[in-house]
Amino acid sequence: MMEKKSLTETRVFDGLSMKKFLLHDSPWFRILNFNLSAGQVFPVHSHDSEGQLSIQVLEGSGEFLGKDGKAIPAQAGDLLLCDINEPHGVRAHTDLRILVTIAPPF
Amino acid sequence: MMEKKSLTETRVFDGLSMKKFLLHDSPWFRILNFNLSAGQVFPVHSHDSEGQLSIQVLEGSGEFLGKDGKAIPAQAGDLLLCDINEPHGVRAHTDLRILVTIAPPF
Repeated sequence: MMEKKSLTETRVFDGLSMKKFLLHDSPWFRILNFNLSAGQVFPVHSHDSEGQLSIQVLEGSGEFLGKDGKAIPAQAGDLLLCDINEPHGVRAHTDLRILVTIAPPF
Repeated sequence: MMEKKSLTETRVFDGLSMKKFLLHDSPWFRILNFNLSAGQVFPVHSHDSEGQLSIQVLEGSGEFLGKDGKAIPAQAGDLLLCDINEPHGVRAHTDLRILVTIAPPF
């Protein structure tokens, strides 16, 4: 299994709601690209599952969101690591692209 | 656990050998940034372990390498998915940065 995907092909924004692209799914990890237009929010959520996820900012700026109103500045090149069962979300200040890797998929 | 890392802080090249930065390690996944100067090669290798890895090109261009001399063009935004036990490597044509995620770590 050797497969190439292109993140440039999923560079699509929608002013009505964030765009979601599934890039890979296996028993080991799931990889998704979310594109948020400026002002859009990936609401804070969590899943009752063991494991961790990474949220990598591909371009743009905004905030990583957490529980109790926590907000951490997020810009291109930032990588957030968090447990799957911990509340997490993202707010876009500019058009914002993130790559999310979930291990293992829940 | 909510932790932020910055890929801009690990943007370091060394003309003598590729640079390796461990960004995260847990039972679920390991995340590394490798920076190859133009001309450097991450030799083809594999590990006798179950699981998969992704190789994301952050910047630059080159080739993903596989078994039997296989070479797949690699440029910024490309994401290669492969089994941990399958031969894989990278050649840098320009200065090249990659983000490698291994699930689970071997």
